[in-house]
Amino acid sequence: MTDIAPLRLGIAGLGTVGVGVVKFVRKHAKLIEKRPGRPVQIVAVAARNRAKERGVDLTRYDWEDDPVGKHVVTANKALLAHHGQAIAEAAEAAGIVLRFEAAVAGGIPVIKALTEGLAGNEITRVMGVMNGTCNYILTRMQATRQGYEALFDEAAKLGYLEADPQLDVGGIDAGHKLSLLSSIAFGTQVNFDAVELEGITRITLEDIEQAADMGYRIKLLGVVQTTGRGLEQRMSPCLVPSNSPLGQLEGGTNMVVIEGDMVGQIVMRGAGAGEGPTASAVMGDVMDIARGITISTFGKPATALTPAVPAKAAVPAAFYLRMTLDDKPGALAKVAAVLGDAGVSINRMRQYGHDETVAPVIIVTHKCSREAVDRALSGIGATGVVKGEPVAIRIEDV
Amino acid sequence: MTDIAPLRLGIAGLGTVGVGVVKFVRKHAKLIEKRPGRPVQIVAVAARNRAKERGVDLTRYDWEDDPVGKHVVTANKALLAHHGQAIAEAAEAAGIVLRFEAAVAGGIPVIKALTEGLAGNEITRVMGVMNGTCNYILTRMQATRQGYEALFDEAAKLGYLEADPQLDVGGIDAGHKLSLLSSIAFGTQVNFDAVELEGITRITLEDIEQAADMGYRIKLLGVVQTTGRGLEQRMSPCLVPSNSPLGQLEGGTNMVVIEGDMVGQIVMRGAGAGEGPTASAVMGDVMDIARGITISTFGKPATALTPAVPAKAAVPAAFYLRMTLDDKPGALAKVAAVLGDAGVSINRMRQYGHDETVAPVIIVTHKCSREAVDRALSGIGATGVVKGEPVAIRIEDV
Repeated sequence: MTDIAPLRLGIAGLGTVGVGVVKFVRKHAKLIEKRPGRPVQIVAVAARNRAKERGVDLTRYDWEDDPVGKHVVTANKALLAHHGQAIAEAAEAAGIVLRFEAAVAGGIPVIKALTEGLAGNEITRVMGVMNGTCNYILTRMQATRQGYEALFDEAAKLGYLEADPQLDVGGIDAGHKLSLLSSIAFGTQVNFDAVELEGITRITLEDIEQAADMGYRIKLLGVVQTTGRGLEQRMSPCLVPSNSPLGQLEGGTNMVVIEGDMVGQIVMRGAGAGEGPTASAVMGDVMDIARGITISTFGKPATALTPAVPAKAAVPAAFYLRMTLDDKPGALAKVAAVLGDAGVSINRMRQYGHDETVAPVIIVTHKCSREAVDRALSGIGATGVVKGEPVAIRIEDV
Repeated sequence: MTDIAPLRLGIAGLGTVGVGVVKFVRKHAKLIEKRPGRPVQIVAVAARNRAKERGVDLTRYDWEDDPVGKHVVTANKALLAHHGQAIAEAAEAAGIVLRFEAAVAGGIPVIKALTEGLAGNEITRVMGVMNGTCNYILTRMQATRQGYEALFDEAAKLGYLEADPQLDVGGIDAGHKLSLLSSIAFGTQVNFDAVELEGITRITLEDIEQAADMGYRIKLLGVVQTTGRGLEQRMSPCLVPSNSPLGQLEGGTNMVVIEGDMVGQIVMRGAGAGEGPTASAVMGDVMDIARGITISTFGKPATALTPAVPAKAAVPAAFYLRMTLDDKPGALAKVAAVLGDAGVSINRMRQYGHDETVAPVIIVTHKCSREAVDRALSGIGATGVVKGEPVAIRIEDV
């Protein structure tokens, strides 16, 4: 059919991703050959344990105990978040193409969109809900009116959690992904350590219901943007409007929002995990390589990526505050005074159903800095009228 | 900074798209050079009228009265919808790259997603709301409770309509776009003549409000899919669930939904028109060419694209029917009998506020073929109990 040499594929690692790729390369052999006009053949596989049963016949492939790098397609976000710059420099110096569509937001072709499709834009902001497990827990809390612990247990039973759950609920996995998008968007060296991380473990059903009541949803939202203060990378719970695309995102689905000076806002949504979506992303990269595409790892040559200057502080925002006051005359006045002194002005406040000794209070502030909020919260603690620790959640303009 | 020869850009046509590209190539000269590692320079421009004032200084460029083709980036969907196959064959035979991201869904990088990012998938269906003017009219009808004519006039005043409004409201422009997506998705030769077209001119406020009341929105929706019956390409008003991404799409925004066997459902949303978004799409293509990407026009070699066998009939669906009955005993019974005889079974029916002589009736059918619906409507016409022409709108499973 064609006399072009086939692209020879070695698969290192035979977990969900590797086995998925084997299955789909077989299923789609003809389709894959016709599209780039070049066949793709699996020639070798490698994994730690050769004996393990993987539900797919691998006997026809060579078993490599020591895979040696050619062009590389990977789904390993942690590796790239920590060592992306060094790996990209080494790959580019050696003339090796390194692609990682499957490392971010599963099947959504967002690396391609950002690196290539929107390459003419000055990117102004990238946002993403990129951990399906967290979004599952948060949306199920609202749907079932159960607390965080119950839904954490449910997610664990369903096998949605990483071996170390902190990777999910602590925002680390999503933070890894964000740091990769950040590098492409702003031409900076990957700097995961500069991602401000906060997980979802402190979000209560009360927060979710109060937010819903005011027209918001709570999402574990990643945001990267450059400001006069530097590069801001945050992965943290945020309130977003219920009627926004981000607010409407239910369950384990992922969403990435890219904003550019020419294109305005682009929203991409799809499955963030699973054998099929991940294999789809890997195969897209493989077919690019079959087609001879040789783009820089992070969209511009690795040696031209600049060190990111982490922003000293996030851009101002409105904040949602929740605290529990002693139900004594003057408590609320004290809180209001401390907020005012810290430069935090109140937009909305509500005090709701309480028992005899404590009164839960929700405050939505006008836009202010996070430092002002932290200053206020520490001042409020010092007044002695608050029970437990107040909660502050950013309200993101999306 | 670099010793790679710049990519020399000629701009043929100086309307919104051409002028937008000139502006952004100037604004982003450094960014463009750094990303592909190669500068992009405008060297020549061409248009019908040299004297026209375009709000941008073009004196520094050569004026070409007879532009000759090199690699080509175009936003012209009508040209490709009608002559795409011949143009792609000629381009590929001559070793010329032809790209057209800006021709479909404005700034959304959907051509790239479908041709490259999702290339490992067998595509099962592509859907799109790709005419912002129609979506503006339909969503404003609902928001303002005004009829089609009033909103058509409003869109005209705002300059949203093509010189020939039928291109918009007749579904032709969106149909052009759909035929291009269809070719990439299914590896078939572009065949616009096989697109089943129906515009939005017969949609009434009543339809929109009745649909909303049942949990639906009406969208001018394009759908392409292959079935046992062949390639189905439709651009027509459809009911979609209000809480689906397509149902939630307001105003002039575009959305494309791609479904593949590996990836599941990918949703992409963004501005479908305007100087910035269109220039963004053009510049993405230009930078691909600067990077040396030489992909086939429609994702596989033009000579390997197969003629599409148009489906003899669309896949079955539920339908929304609206008709006005003589308010006489037995009228509804006659309608129900005709529907039953035609093999159309009723899921929901409602008769609502009516004057003394006529009764509007809404029927939602179970899934059935379009032919059965047409047979039923013609039979209902013959009973003599219906005033005016009944309306049938497909309910799409999204």
